[in-house]
Amino acid sequence: MRAVDVIINKRNGKALSTEEIEFFIEGYASGEIPDYQAAAWAMAVLLKGMNSRETADLTSAIAGSGEQIDLSGVVDFAVDKHSTGGVGDKTTLVVQPMVAACGVPVGKMSGRGLGFTGGTLDKLESIPGFRVNLSTDEFMAQLRDIGLVLAGQTADLAPADGKLYALRDVTGTVPSIPLIASSVMSKKIAGGAKGIVLDVKVGTGAFMQSLDEAIELAQLMVDIGIHADRKVVALISDMNQPLGNAIGNAIEVREALLTLRGEGPRDFREHCVTVASHMLSLAQNLSSFDEAREKAEESLVTGSAYDKFIEMVGAQSGDVSVLEDPNKLPEAPHIETYSAEEGGFISMVHAQEVGLTAMELGAGRAKKGDPVDHTVGIEVHAKVGDQIDADQPIFTIHAKNERESQSASERLHKAILVQENPIDPLPLFYETVT
Amino acid sequence: MRAVDVIINKRNGKALSTEEIEFFIEGYASGEIPDYQAAAWAMAVLLKGMNSRETADLTSAIAGSGEQIDLSGVVDFAVDKHSTGGVGDKTTLVVQPMVAACGVPVGKMSGRGLGFTGGTLDKLESIPGFRVNLSTDEFMAQLRDIGLVLAGQTADLAPADGKLYALRDVTGTVPSIPLIASSVMSKKIAGGAKGIVLDVKVGTGAFMQSLDEAIELAQLMVDIGIHADRKVVALISDMNQPLGNAIGNAIEVREALLTLRGEGPRDFREHCVTVASHMLSLAQNLSSFDEAREKAEESLVTGSAYDKFIEMVGAQSGDVSVLEDPNKLPEAPHIETYSAEEGGFISMVHAQEVGLTAMELGAGRAKKGDPVDHTVGIEVHAKVGDQIDADQPIFTIHAKNERESQSASERLHKAILVQENPIDPLPLFYETVT
Repeated sequence: MRAVDVIINKRNGKALSTEEIEFFIEGYASGEIPDYQAAAWAMAVLLKGMNSRETADLTSAIAGSGEQIDLSGVVDFAVDKHSTGGVGDKTTLVVQPMVAACGVPVGKMSGRGLGFTGGTLDKLESIPGFRVNLSTDEFMAQLRDIGLVLAGQTADLAPADGKLYALRDVTGTVPSIPLIASSVMSKKIAGGAKGIVLDVKVGTGAFMQSLDEAIELAQLMVDIGIHADRKVVALISDMNQPLGNAIGNAIEVREALLTLRGEGPRDFREHCVTVASHMLSLAQNLSSFDEAREKAEESLVTGSAYDKFIEMVGAQSGDVSVLEDPNKLPEAPHIETYSAEEGGFISMVHAQEVGLTAMELGAGRAKKGDPVDHTVGIEVHAKVGDQIDADQPIFTIHAKNERESQSASERLHKAILVQENPIDPLPLFYETVT
Repeated sequence: MRAVDVIINKRNGKALSTEEIEFFIEGYASGEIPDYQAAAWAMAVLLKGMNSRETADLTSAIAGSGEQIDLSGVVDFAVDKHSTGGVGDKTTLVVQPMVAACGVPVGKMSGRGLGFTGGTLDKLESIPGFRVNLSTDEFMAQLRDIGLVLAGQTADLAPADGKLYALRDVTGTVPSIPLIASSVMSKKIAGGAKGIVLDVKVGTGAFMQSLDEAIELAQLMVDIGIHADRKVVALISDMNQPLGNAIGNAIEVREALLTLRGEGPRDFREHCVTVASHMLSLAQNLSSFDEAREKAEESLVTGSAYDKFIEMVGAQSGDVSVLEDPNKLPEAPHIETYSAEEGGFISMVHAQEVGLTAMELGAGRAKKGDPVDHTVGIEVHAKVGDQIDADQPIFTIHAKNERESQSASERLHKAILVQENPIDPLPLFYETVT
């Protein structure tokens, strides 16, 4: 078999065989197939597509390119979640403790991420002392003892994905639904998850801008899961406006803590309850989805999820006193309020614009290795559909200094629209794909 | 400007600006843009196409990537020809001496080529002592003194083309009409030609298998010529059966010599007269195309073209005595005749199969740097439409040994079809595009 023939077959719109896909991915991972052949192949895949069998084969080849974790000795049925990413998405920080508190051990390996704010690891590092780099032994021991771990990758999972993603980033081959789907699913499968809840965001602040595309991606990932003998549920959720109120790192941790205590923004709380319920439904033999919801809600009401989070922070050397008093989390030097110029009904809080403003403030990173500022970010005090008065605070800007706060304020001015007539709130979820 | 944005624009089907194309080709030629970005770009060009303005810009950027030869001090109006390649295509060996004999100096830089047989340089090296590697000074001096040079590239013409072609070869991005057109035309333009006759082959033995594609390629190359202020004529010629009788290296030189002496196969002679006439029409102020044809024919009848060829061989240190007696050219050890099993009318002499058989005998090379055997090859004694008797010789196989001859014979069996009913001969030319 020759790499160039695999490229030519895809270029001509043929479905690649399982053997062709394995040959290509193994060859690329080992370095026998060079970047330039992988780049031409990726462009052909982007422009000619892949069917679900090909995408499942691709996922399995990528998952097989490195270590594959077996959690069966520690967890009966390992569940994981993945979000395609959005603005204010601190779901992992709340959902994993909820699920763990309900008796399903969850060990999640997260990334640092590029984009509007840092990833889960960056957010957690707002807590002084918190260790995200655990060894595999530490990870397994904590999962067994406490039932909750949030850490960086302890193993070399799906290395072909990392290599391919870096290449796609510089060759204009990122927005391919089969390549995105296989990238997400290969890491989940290599990480040992048997049940996976996918949170596919759609809207101005998400990668997927149209509902059709989001459903296509969700369906493809569910199909991959079936091929790989996994249970998968995909939720299509709104990302036209930020999720919850806080967009940043430390301020998102504060919001997560409030939510774990039964407070926190209504939309974010409901989002977390739904995701956690689906994870519980996959992992446990429950009589109904309502039973899962009740258990999830209870973990917030009783504080058991909050206790589980504290337990994890302690185990990972974080300063627990900060959590008891979230005001001890690091704060930005300059905090300013942005108020509405006129009263009315909020018709838009543009997620992407708010996200980019947070990034400009220093909350996110544009390229791998850039630092993030844990203190800065934006709080949003209004949702689409809310009625506001003139001069009512809409945003709180957490900035390094007045100049940057001013610049953020100008940008946020364009992120919000107010109208005279009432308008319906945005839905939290659009669809569930199984 | 970023390379990835140029790739994304082409991926999205946009026409690239002149600046984008120059930026990309200059960057690739200099090594600033890596192979993997060029590979993704080439695949996007192949799948999304380029309009004629883009292709002209691409050609000009590639031509500008290296030296550009100025022949105006030596030749009033430099003409060149290019063939897209076929089986038995020894046209250059005959046409250039014809044109030179008619008073238009022609200095042609040829390649070694990949494929069924060697390129023009390989064929010429069948003549003992013949030097193809001339310095630029030698090239210019001979062009001035004799008016005829057939040599390898003396200058670094269009280096971006060589780099891009090598990349396309291993990334499945060869069969793109804009990329083929710009590759051909960039070298002709950098080589200083002001008039160009393109011989675009179509048929089983050619790169272009359909007449529509051949016309599209021809039209695009003519358009590029107009953009670059060149006079261009493209002839669409048949390559369903081999051109002339000989397919090899030394045996093609022998056929070229016979043709220059006014003998040689009728189809090949007519092909050469037509191509030469178009070159003369571009270079000289003639009253009509018929006048050009008369001059071209005359150069064969009077032997002036043959004399010019001999003069060139002498100037390039070739053994002239071999030309006076073509039987002195190197001969294969094993020569065998393949005869028809049954009489009738020839309905197919499959150019590609005959070409591949010649290549298998050792006449061509599969990859750069491979040697070619000058002695081996195939003579075809029948054309589509010819009536033959049972046991009439159809092929003469020139092979290294009996085993290879036998293997060629078996393959050639499938290359020929004989039918009971008369059938029309194939045309030599299908169309002229200007």
